[in-house]
Amino acid sequence: MSITKTSETIGLSPGEIVYLGDNRAEPVKISVVQYSPDMFEETEVSDVAACVPFKETDVISWINISGVHNVGLIKDLGEHFKLHPLILEDIVNTEQRPKMDDFEDYVFLVMKMVYPDMETHTIEYEQISFIIGARYVICLQEVAKDIFDPVRERIKKDKGRIRNSGSDYLAYALIDMVVDHYFRVLEAIGEEIEVIQNDVLEKPEPHFLKIIHSLKKEILFLRKSIWPMREIINTLIRGESSLIKEETVIFLRDVYDHTIQVIDTIETYRDILSGTLDIYLSNVSNKMNEVMKVLTIIATIFIPMTFITGIYGMNFKYMPELSWRGSYPLLWLVLVALSVVMLIWFKRKKWL
Amino acid sequence: MSITKTSETIGLSPGEIVYLGDNRAEPVKISVVQYSPDMFEETEVSDVAACVPFKETDVISWINISGVHNVGLIKDLGEHFKLHPLILEDIVNTEQRPKMDDFEDYVFLVMKMVYPDMETHTIEYEQISFIIGARYVICLQEVAKDIFDPVRERIKKDKGRIRNSGSDYLAYALIDMVVDHYFRVLEAIGEEIEVIQNDVLEKPEPHFLKIIHSLKKEILFLRKSIWPMREIINTLIRGESSLIKEETVIFLRDVYDHTIQVIDTIETYRDILSGTLDIYLSNVSNKMNEVMKVLTIIATIFIPMTFITGIYGMNFKYMPELSWRGSYPLLWLVLVALSVVMLIWFKRKKWL
Amino acid sequence: MSITKTSETIGLSPGEIVYLGDNRAEPVKISVVQYSPDMFEETEVSDVAACVPFKETDVISWINISGVHNVGLIKDLGEHFKLHPLILEDIVNTEQRPKMDDFEDYVFLVMKMVYPDMETHTIEYEQISFIIGARYVICLQEVAKDIFDPVRERIKKDKGRIRNSGSDYLAYALIDMVVDHYFRVLEAIGEEIEVIQNDVLEKPEPHFLKIIHSLKKEILFLRKSIWPMREIINTLIRGESSLIKEETVIFLRDVYDHTIQVIDTIETYRDILSGTLDIYLSNVSNKMNEVMKVLTIIATIFIPMTFITGIYGMNFKYMPELSWRGSYPLLWLVLVALSVVMLIWFKRKKWL
Amino acid sequence: MSITKTSETIGLSPGEIVYLGDNRAEPVKISVVQYSPDMFEETEVSDVAACVPFKETDVISWINISGVHNVGLIKDLGEHFKLHPLILEDIVNTEQRPKMDDFEDYVFLVMKMVYPDMETHTIEYEQISFIIGARYVICLQEVAKDIFDPVRERIKKDKGRIRNSGSDYLAYALIDMVVDHYFRVLEAIGEEIEVIQNDVLEKPEPHFLKIIHSLKKEILFLRKSIWPMREIINTLIRGESSLIKEETVIFLRDVYDHTIQVIDTIETYRDILSGTLDIYLSNVSNKMNEVMKVLTIIATIFIPMTFITGIYGMNFKYMPELSWRGSYPLLWLVLVALSVVMLIWFKRKKWL
Amino acid sequence: MSITKTSETIGLSPGEIVYLGDNRAEPVKISVVQYSPDMFEETEVSDVAACVPFKETDVISWINISGVHNVGLIKDLGEHFKLHPLILEDIVNTEQRPKMDDFEDYVFLVMKMVYPDMETHTIEYEQISFIIGARYVICLQEVAKDIFDPVRERIKKDKGRIRNSGSDYLAYALIDMVVDHYFRVLEAIGEEIEVIQNDVLEKPEPHFLKIIHSLKKEILFLRKSIWPMREIINTLIRGESSLIKEETVIFLRDVYDHTIQVIDTIETYRDILSGTLDIYLSNVSNKMNEVMKVLTIIATIFIPMTFITGIYGMNFKYMPELSWRGSYPLLWLVLVALSVVMLIWFKRKKWL
Repeated sequence: MSITKTSETIGLSPGEIVYLGDNRAEPVKISVVQYSPDMFEETEVSDVAACVPFKETDVISWINISGVHNVGLIKDLGEHFKLHPLILEDIVNTEQRPKMDDFEDYVFLVMKMVYPDMETHTIEYEQISFIIGARYVICLQEVAKDIFDPVRERIKKDKGRIRNSGSDYLAYALIDMVVDHYFRVLEAIGEEIEVIQNDVLEKPEPHFLKIIHSLKKEILFLRKSIWPMREIINTLIRGESSLIKEETVIFLRDVYDHTIQVIDTIETYRDILSGTLDIYLSNVSNKMNEVMKVLTIIATIFIPMTFITGIYGMNFKYMPELSWRGSYPLLWLVLVALSVVMLIWFKRKKWL
Repeated sequence: MSITKTSETIGLSPGEIVYLGDNRAEPVKISVVQYSPDMFEETEVSDVAACVPFKETDVISWINISGVHNVGLIKDLGEHFKLHPLILEDIVNTEQRPKMDDFEDYVFLVMKMVYPDMETHTIEYEQISFIIGARYVICLQEVAKDIFDPVRERIKKDKGRIRNSGSDYLAYALIDMVVDHYFRVLEAIGEEIEVIQNDVLEKPEPHFLKIIHSLKKEILFLRKSIWPMREIINTLIRGESSLIKEETVIFLRDVYDHTIQVIDTIETYRDILSGTLDIYLSNVSNKMNEVMKVLTIIATIFIPMTFITGIYGMNFKYMPELSWRGSYPLLWLVLVALSVVMLIWFKRKKWL
Repeated sequence: MSITKTSETIGLSPGEIVYLGDNRAEPVKISVVQYSPDMFEETEVSDVAACVPFKETDVISWINISGVHNVGLIKDLGEHFKLHPLILEDIVNTEQRPKMDDFEDYVFLVMKMVYPDMETHTIEYEQISFIIGARYVICLQEVAKDIFDPVRERIKKDKGRIRNSGSDYLAYALIDMVVDHYFRVLEAIGEEIEVIQNDVLEKPEPHFLKIIHSLKKEILFLRKSIWPMREIINTLIRGESSLIKEETVIFLRDVYDHTIQVIDTIETYRDILSGTLDIYLSNVSNKMNEVMKVLTIIATIFIPMTFITGIYGMNFKYMPELSWRGSYPLLWLVLVALSVVMLIWFKRKKWL
Repeated sequence: MSITKTSETIGLSPGEIVYLGDNRAEPVKISVVQYSPDMFEETEVSDVAACVPFKETDVISWINISGVHNVGLIKDLGEHFKLHPLILEDIVNTEQRPKMDDFEDYVFLVMKMVYPDMETHTIEYEQISFIIGARYVICLQEVAKDIFDPVRERIKKDKGRIRNSGSDYLAYALIDMVVDHYFRVLEAIGEEIEVIQNDVLEKPEPHFLKIIHSLKKEILFLRKSIWPMREIINTLIRGESSLIKEETVIFLRDVYDHTIQVIDTIETYRDILSGTLDIYLSNVSNKMNEVMKVLTIIATIFIPMTFITGIYGMNFKYMPELSWRGSYPLLWLVLVALSVVMLIWFKRKKWL
Repeated sequence: MSITKTSETIGLSPGEIVYLGDNRAEPVKISVVQYSPDMFEETEVSDVAACVPFKETDVISWINISGVHNVGLIKDLGEHFKLHPLILEDIVNTEQRPKMDDFEDYVFLVMKMVYPDMETHTIEYEQISFIIGARYVICLQEVAKDIFDPVRERIKKDKGRIRNSGSDYLAYALIDMVVDHYFRVLEAIGEEIEVIQNDVLEKPEPHFLKIIHSLKKEILFLRKSIWPMREIINTLIRGESSLIKEETVIFLRDVYDHTIQVIDTIETYRDILSGTLDIYLSNVSNKMNEVMKVLTIIATIFIPMTFITGIYGMNFKYMPELSWRGSYPLLWLVLVALSVVMLIWFKRKKWL
């Protein structure tokens, strides 16, 4: 997730909307799922205007729009569904912080969907906005991905209570899906942390530093995107909106608990990563210590001995020892004794 | 405690339950203790259906189910006791964060039981769920362990007020048991910290790093599992549930105090461990300093002296000193004087 | 932003105002924009007295005063608009912390405008004060800058709802402008952080330390100036002032969200910078390790070999080896073998 | 203060009490002070039963019991004064966290008394429990110490308002005493910190590390024992108990302020100790730097010079310089010049 | 500010007051300023009794007492003005934490006045107590200093609204004065920080450590003395005391904002100092790195070359090279080539 870029929008009036994400050429796709306890229908429509009839029907309509880069489409949506201009701005501003706004007729939610990118070992973020009305849920994505397929399946196969519940339960199911994906990302990160942790304890290599740093940054961004969700879901639970029915609250409370668990795990990972960095640094320091010891042992043994050989390498005319018979063997004796004493001393100092 | 793994459950509807713990082959065991001021009876039943009659009797029933890996059993339980589907999900999801849910007829609690594993020096976690009804307490464990035997004994021998109190007092006794086990684990950790602390002050060895790191991680997980308990018990105390009677609240307040004490101790241990790591690192640094001093002293004394011997080892034809009679003894004098001066200088600098 | 200097004002009574910013010779400039749904008029007036008629008119008046260093002007303003003496003090005290005061007839706001100074890589701060009345907004700047031109354009071209809204919406538009500028500064900082981060991972150079330190300080000051804004805008939203109409609150909530986002990003930058410093320090430490290894390898190989040559450089009369024929080739063999053994040992220790 | 050991009590019912402190052979001592505005009487009684009459008299009774290791005594107390079983447990559990429980007829308090142990430089903790009734205060200590003698004196000599006030004022006087002792301990610690701080700035010695670490730990435990007191006294102030009269509240507020001051001072000491550790570590690092500089200077000057002497120590037959007359003096010139150049270079680099 | 010393007061009853500051021989001085919109009178009185008539007059009386070491005086004050004994204790206890107590007839405030001591580069603290009655303000200082002269001038010269306001406005003016002095101290500290910061970036010298440490400590104490002021002034603002009139509250709010600004600046300084320490440590580490590099370069070039000279310094009879004609020039060639290769290698590694 790159850092927010919004300087281009400075000075625009709230009604003017500018798409901030990467340029995309993909076509816009609008799919509609309609269901009631007795029926299920899936259609694709070509433009937003075709969605207006779904706004107030007896059945529940789930309108899935992918391609928020199409500013015209979003404007149309705003007009047909009578949305507040600030909402339209938030939908296309893909750097929006997760937030919730409760208008009387509908609730507006912005969330961050996360996927682990297995190849580059990074996390991908996609902004997802929900507009929850009494009889419909509009879900807006950047690109068409199949992330909500399990929910579609559940509706189709009439599993659980989803067909018998209202739009608020559908919204719950979708939000639950988003939060569940955080667990998937945490799993991937957790495995990487596990690996790096063991490696660091074995042998400290400089590139670990880079990995720890990038993991830390990813956790930072993850935290930034999940933290506001806690508050959002809590607001939904407090039941200030008449759109959220009593029996759905307990399900939202469950999602809330999951959000807390995600946050908890993120904090734990942070602490573990800090610990891992500490270990890495200590290991580097230990290695250095070991290197220094080797140097010191070698130097401390051989420098004095070399000095002694230097003495008898001098060319003074009058050096009585030079002509003594036993000098040379005696000297060897002295050198060996000296090094033995040194080694014992090192042993005592636990350097060996 | 490994890190939560729930990606397999993404997209399931709340009613669908999937066991997430390790695979277990152990049989399910259901034991029922029934008591009133005048009677005590202990039976084993084969399936959940047999427990239904205990739901509303004059006596208090304590139903102990071990083996939550049996998903069929949990489904039966849900049906017979009319439990909310989310509860069933939480029971089998052994990575669940401790939580409490208050349904009108019953209170649902998830907690983490901890044991110190003496051999591997790690902490074992087991998830324990309680369903507290007006006349019964259902207690669900992963494996059959005797952890609640002292409570069973107290009921059997009619010690204290337990026989004369309701299901809420029984629940208190069981929760108290869970919290008490945290003290046992803290004791074990406390002893390990005491040992490592003294060792680190004596001599810093690289493997201490590993031990400190793993202790830190254990404390991290312990904290993660006790922290939510505080809130849970506090919610029970605030007496929002009609199932918790006034006279039990004071006992719960006592458990609450214990929870705070556990959290306090964990925080203290964290601080002490951080301090221990600091000491370890400082000691490593001190050791290095000492090594460097030895090297520097040896090198500083002998390198100049070796240089002098080098001078008189040269083969120049015209070196007057070489043929002087007193050169050699004089040279020794100079060398000794030089090293004495050096040693005094080192003494001054407090390097010796 | 230098640190607050207010010792000169100690002991003054609240009415006495002293300008604290840099000395400026620029002339004071007062421009007035008047508008209603049907009209737009832009005039320049020479003194504050000329502004008084705008105080209560049917149209909305936006009075832009640049040059708060002119104490006489501010005093006039205070008299003509019946402002509280403390407000006048706050306007000229350019080291004022962002704050809000709600008098019944008008709301007083102090904010910090920020610009990135591209050349010196620093952030410039300018204090902006707003006095929001029922039919007018007075905006006071240190110097005349075109920062509010986009708003003026929007009014002129009748874009969005601004012409049809009251003075509170105008105030919103101006505040929004101020907050938007923080994003511009954050962008600039974000880019610098991105660059330094990559550089630090590549090669640690001492001057990075200076850059990281100055970035940290800039973030510190930025944080200090945006943090109180959060509270200010929140107070406006809570709607305690009758001057802020219901329909403007949702727009203010949007500004509030932006403020939170700015704070979030600042916190993230702080964490990333701390991480960058850690990496820098670790890299320095790694470099040192590498240097030490080279020294140790060279010394450990050559010092013992030099000792051996020292032995046979001695001038003892009776050294049998000296006269052996094969001594010299044998010695070379020994030396080569010794260094090979050493190199293998270093290889084993992963020093090579 | 060792770390809490309560595993022995796991599974006991609340009524069963087990003494957890060190084994003591000292006899139990019960002394009673009775006073009213007009009288003062001090007696010693042999058992708890003898105290019952003091429970409801016109005069105020202060019952001082030392020796909570006598479990029988505590049980008697519980029976005669109709105390809640949990209280009895708390009294004998000398590892209890400071707490307060408000029963209607009496208030129960647990606090930690601290003394500096001048000889071992450690802090001693003693648990003190108070039971405050309408006409009596029971004070329970581990051992008989004279800590409350000043209060006894004040009552005896009728100083201040104590004789004219109720049991709540007596309780205040005793609690005030306990809090005052924290200042004494802080004084002792403050002096030690002052000493270590100066020493560390002068010369860093490894044993300072040990001292800093143990001071840190002591502050940690001190903090753990005073922190809950804040809340306890605050609860008393909020006047929820009818036993605490209006005019005593202002005195309790004073104790509360003292508690805050103790906590403040503890936090300050923590910060100072952290700073001291930083200085110690920096000094170690500076020392190392100095050592390295000496080594480098010596080695950098002499190694090249030794190389030169090595050159002319070679035994090549054809080395023209060897037979030149001025070679030797010239060489000395070169060596001296070389070392002078080196020294200047070091001077430039500020290594000398 | 030394650390609190109150062990001498342990066990005293609240009425007994003991002066805790340094011994002073200065005489007590009591000066009284009386004013109303129409008059101003300044007198000096010899004892407290003479002040009693000022307690309830039509004019406002400002009684300035310096010399709280005179315990008799304070006792007299207590008697004549009917003050609570705890207040008297707080006045003479010059280590008192800033606090506020609201008695019905008067408000009692304790604050810390700070001055920068320019010569010793330390901060001096003086305790100032205020007793604010309906028609009078008593101000108690340790020594007679002219700190409130500007206020006296304002009253004398009838500047601003002070003559037309009550005792609460006078109290505001005095408190404002106290808070303003914090800015003066912060300025002095800010300048010192600015200097040390630049110096540390230039060259790290050990004595900086000492300066940074003492600045940190001063900031710690400053923070400890300003932090409670925030709460005190907030309590006054909340208007619980009937002595503080509505129109004074806005002025107190201004003082409150200043207090926040002081706290903000202190936090910023703390962060900057931490950053400065980091830079200092990194610079020390960089310096060490540089030293090591010089040593390694010198040693790595000369040690192998010295080894080679050692070879040809050996006295073996049969060394063919020794008698070759071109050996010596060839050897020089080898040595030069070797050192060139080394230097290129160092260049590559960016060590040069």
